[in-house]
Amino acid sequence: MTKESHGFVVTSDIFNGLTIDTDEQDFSTEENFEPKLGDAIPQWKGEGIRGLWVKIHLAHSFVVPVCSKLGFDYNHAQSGYVMMTKWLPDEEENKLPEYANQFLGVAGFVLNEKKELLVIRERFSVIQSKPWKLPGGLADKGEDLAVTARREVVEETGIEAEFVSVLGFRHQHNFRFGCSDWYFICLMKALTTEIKHCPQEIAECKWISIEEYLSDPHLTEANKFFVQCYLNQQKNGGLTISPTLIDSWNKKTQHNIYAVHPLPKEFNPHHGH
Amino acid sequence: MTKESHGFVVTSDIFNGLTIDTDEQDFSTEENFEPKLGDAIPQWKGEGIRGLWVKIHLAHSFVVPVCSKLGFDYNHAQSGYVMMTKWLPDEEENKLPEYANQFLGVAGFVLNEKKELLVIRERFSVIQSKPWKLPGGLADKGEDLAVTARREVVEETGIEAEFVSVLGFRHQHNFRFGCSDWYFICLMKALTTEIKHCPQEIAECKWISIEEYLSDPHLTEANKFFVQCYLNQQKNGGLTISPTLIDSWNKKTQHNIYAVHPLPKEFNPHHGH
Repeated sequence: MTKESHGFVVTSDIFNGLTIDTDEQDFSTEENFEPKLGDAIPQWKGEGIRGLWVKIHLAHSFVVPVCSKLGFDYNHAQSGYVMMTKWLPDEEENKLPEYANQFLGVAGFVLNEKKELLVIRERFSVIQSKPWKLPGGLADKGEDLAVTARREVVEETGIEAEFVSVLGFRHQHNFRFGCSDWYFICLMKALTTEIKHCPQEIAECKWISIEEYLSDPHLTEANKFFVQCYLNQQKNGGLTISPTLIDSWNKKTQHNIYAVHPLPKEFNPHHGH
Repeated sequence: MTKESHGFVVTSDIFNGLTIDTDEQDFSTEENFEPKLGDAIPQWKGEGIRGLWVKIHLAHSFVVPVCSKLGFDYNHAQSGYVMMTKWLPDEEENKLPEYANQFLGVAGFVLNEKKELLVIRERFSVIQSKPWKLPGGLADKGEDLAVTARREVVEETGIEAEFVSVLGFRHQHNFRFGCSDWYFICLMKALTTEIKHCPQEIAECKWISIEEYLSDPHLTEANKFFVQCYLNQQKNGGLTISPTLIDSWNKKTQHNIYAVHPLPKEFNPHHGH
């Protein structure tokens, strides 16, 4: 709900918070901004407002030092804006929610018809020995797992592949800027065979038998484990981690819920046995 | 690697990037900062530098409008600092990595000895009917899944519980600020029975039979599905999603990798049959 309050256009939320978007304010008199905001804060506090949010667009970055002086802190930033917040209650700890703190990486465990695995060597790697790895990369904002897997596999290797299931996933902490990182390994079926690797990112790319891959002395423990997940799946009656689209609470959209399910028929070694 | 470059203390990275941390600069003459940075940028560009990162601490927020004027954009912010970046190559798209864009929520599917489920009703909810829900909340930065589950369950309900396995997880897009949200449901064994719910966040809390829970007409489709995951697990030979600690590539630390495994013996209905 947007309204005028003490000279600002503000939006209120259900937690007694107010958001000031710099795009919605009148900045004809820039120099007035600081005293106006300084005056408004104690009034909002008296009215029971708990959290103040100021969304500062790049063109209005002069507001950042003003908010800093008035006791605001950074909450988060994205391309084009920074969000600063101030918690008003004296007697209560700050309850304003933190921003997203998890990265998402996705890799493809891509098999061709001969059950050979698609592997790559990166051009730039922190691991000196540059072991054979699975093609993959970071999810774009809002991108679904299976989409990231397909996109990264085709970008890095030229191979078109179809998502089958999730073999497993790693959760790593202190990855970058103190955030955690999810790394999902997706079992995929190759739809094409001809490799055309990305020359900027990838040094080498090839099909390799599972046995040969496992015999690489430089193979990381994590990748060894993911191969084991694949081999276990064959034994476990083809049970794997698969998504199901489920209605959201208001039935307006659907979300994928991942749980243990049998592999689709065509991939299930136990089907019909 | 930290060095002096064109009047700044900078740290270089393996991608031909430079980071300027405002805490490491000499700000005795604030007014010099803008012309100095303006002069340095084309020189760095000429030297083949690709990405510039400026980490601007709250006390140095006057640097934000300067960087904005010189063509920097926001990359991310955390409490205490904002990171601004500028991509220098003219002929190449911006390859500077985006910040974390995933939230992590965790809930406990907590069962007592009678196999009753621990459920709560929130004080504040976007869902008018306020259905019975599982206790849970957002992970703190760097917090492991099982730790979040235990912490949220005890904070909200007063019940101490032990992590058993992951029943399933939902991936939702456009959750908040355009980011996605992971919601992991952890099967847990209650270690205590006496409920003391958090009065600030929780309106009601109780133990309920699975049958009664499923008969609630307001139950969300997602929670119905998670109950089904629990019931399926009993049929699937107790196969569930469990973490295993695996060495990192440099063997300096370990990370949890989640995959399909049998439930621990004491929870596995098929054990010994």
